[in-house]
Amino acid sequence: MSTLLANISLLVTNDPSAGDGLTGEIVDAAVVIDNGVIVWVGSSAKSPAADERVDLDGRCVIPGFVDSHSHLIFAGDRTAEFAARMSGAAYSAGGIKTTVAATRSASDDELRLRATDLVAEMRRHGTTTVEIKSGYGLDVANEARSVQIARELTAETTFLGAHVVPPEYADNSDRYVDLVCGAMLDACAPHAKWVDVFCDRGAFDADQARAVLRAGMQRGLLPRLHANQLESGPGVQLAVEVDAASADHCTHLSDADIEALAGSTTVATLLPGAEFSTRANYPDARRLIDAGATVALATDCNPGSSYTSSMPFCIAIAVRDMKMTPAEAMWSATAGGARALRRDDIGAVRVGANADLVAINAPSYVHLAYRPGVQLIGSVL
Amino acid sequence: MSTLLANISLLVTNDPSAGDGLTGEIVDAAVVIDNGVIVWVGSSAKSPAADERVDLDGRCVIPGFVDSHSHLIFAGDRTAEFAARMSGAAYSAGGIKTTVAATRSASDDELRLRATDLVAEMRRHGTTTVEIKSGYGLDVANEARSVQIARELTAETTFLGAHVVPPEYADNSDRYVDLVCGAMLDACAPHAKWVDVFCDRGAFDADQARAVLRAGMQRGLLPRLHANQLESGPGVQLAVEVDAASADHCTHLSDADIEALAGSTTVATLLPGAEFSTRANYPDARRLIDAGATVALATDCNPGSSYTSSMPFCIAIAVRDMKMTPAEAMWSATAGGARALRRDDIGAVRVGANADLVAINAPSYVHLAYRPGVQLIGSVL
Ligand SMILES: [Zn+2]
Ligand SMILES: [Zn+2]
Repeated sequence: MSTLLANISLLVTNDPSAGDGLTGEIVDAAVVIDNGVIVWVGSSAKSPAADERVDLDGRCVIPGFVDSHSHLIFAGDRTAEFAARMSGAAYSAGGIKTTVAATRSASDDELRLRATDLVAEMRRHGTTTVEIKSGYGLDVANEARSVQIARELTAETTFLGAHVVPPEYADNSDRYVDLVCGAMLDACAPHAKWVDVFCDRGAFDADQARAVLRAGMQRGLLPRLHANQLESGPGVQLAVEVDAASADHCTHLSDADIEALAGSTTVATLLPGAEFSTRANYPDARRLIDAGATVALATDCNPGSSYTSSMPFCIAIAVRDMKMTPAEAMWSATAGGARALRRDDIGAVRVGANADLVAINAPSYVHLAYRPGVQLIGSVL
Repeated sequence: MSTLLANISLLVTNDPSAGDGLTGEIVDAAVVIDNGVIVWVGSSAKSPAADERVDLDGRCVIPGFVDSHSHLIFAGDRTAEFAARMSGAAYSAGGIKTTVAATRSASDDELRLRATDLVAEMRRHGTTTVEIKSGYGLDVANEARSVQIARELTAETTFLGAHVVPPEYADNSDRYVDLVCGAMLDACAPHAKWVDVFCDRGAFDADQARAVLRAGMQRGLLPRLHANQLESGPGVQLAVEVDAASADHCTHLSDADIEALAGSTTVATLLPGAEFSTRANYPDARRLIDAGATVALATDCNPGSSYTSSMPFCIAIAVRDMKMTPAEAMWSATAGGARALRRDDIGAVRVGANADLVAINAPSYVHLAYRPGVQLIGSVL
């Protein structure tokens, strides 16, 4: 059965051949969907007949947000750590260990319930595709169940056994890398699409990260990285070297890093929630965009450094503090996320794409930055 | 009929004699309300019987937010101005004139509908008391209908005829001040509780502002001011001189201003939404609090410089960017706002106070900053 979505004041297609600008905007638009797929996009005046008609009442319609970076499989509570940090206490690097311990002792159902709630919350804030990582298990059994639970919730699952070195391998990180590349990968690869590694100060160095990514790639997983969050390290160069779909964070970049990203198909995924919640400086989105790199926005939703699930919040910060234009931020939160997941069936309103559409209770998507913190997401279609 | 609100994981009372710290926090608490008034507050274990029981299911309960500064009576659309500003175009001082022209040509019903929608939106974000200003009419008839429409929505109405000098008085602002103090005040005073003036660069100087406030006070209105937003001007000193309930913005303060506020009963109301949406530097909340001044947080909700209606968003920014602790921000958004309106029946959970209570879908109010942009407001009780 086909459905005509009529009376859309402004439609973001992300298809420059269909509308104006980077975001392919059509004023006074309509969309026809059939069986979950978009079958017609255009001006209201030319819309074809359909079996059913839904009136959007002058709302703005956008592609559902693609949140390409989240850590939803965890247990435990780090509220007090956040409050202490914000009240001037130094950040305790032991924070993540709390989550690992709680995750290991949680039941499957506890992990499943928390993640399910967060995915539902994301959906209420307009996210229709989310990537979910393991990474708080850090042993074979707990990493395996983490990716399995993630797999119940999304097709975009990521094996992040190399998140940090767990306490029991504290003085022999190479032995932990061997475990990640061996038995842990064996247990996780069947449930994962992606392999990820945290290549940064205090986590894994370039050689260790390369070993993890290459091992995952040999098992058919696609590479992506946590890179250059804490310092200007080797992560971005490694991401480009292995043709990673995305280098995530990109907070500290050298000129060579920017050049490498601009000359590659690796997306720079910026995670302003992390800088927000750790009072760090935001990544320089303008420099990346102006150099020609592809930029995505994602939440990094996790209980330690960025517990937001809201892509509209990330857009507002990107516009205010990272000097992205509202159109650039909109594109990065949708089409950019799709590129970071190497998907062409989401992140755009185009014939043949998935009908993942979100109606905003406002005449324009600019309101997501213009009206920060206001819940403007209407229906998720 | 009395209602027992049971199973509250954390209750913010803002009553230091009832619980811990500035915010008077009680863990595992209960509240009894009767006929819209709080009749009992304490630990769950000691809760009395009541006619009815509502289970809060382990949620955190706080006093409803008191948003002591908003401009909801307006018409027109300034989305494009915001988008241009954020995309690097210079801020057009003509912006407010757009709103004045649109407001003057709008019908009463248009103004009423927009304001009603915004009040409902505020309520969905946890605000139970809102102050509403006139100030986009700027002639006798339009200011009068603005305060009248505001009066339909709140008891906290403010006459802000002295918002800016309207175009028709551009070369004779003193003559406009005469109008504000004369016929306009006559028409507005019966519907207003407060008189306000924008004492800053490009608006009204200290003598003009004093004249407006004194005239309003002679008519029984209570004074409050827009002060020191754009530069370190005379606004704060004037606020203290006339014992204003609040000096709002306080973005640029001298040492003498801080001292004057700390030694007065004038609240410093900070409006981070305005700095967010104009990319200005945030006010120095720490310096004010450490000096002993009383600080409130409010949205400044208006279509030009701060179109957020979300107190949780203001709290998140206050914690991240103004270095307020989560407890301080919580207090300022509730009890602080009540002080800024000289009210003692709101902003606290205390026997005899209004039963304006908000349940947060989280175990702690810290989550309002810890989970920025996430709609966590559950029920408004
Ligand atoms: Zn991450
Ligand atoms: Zn104002």
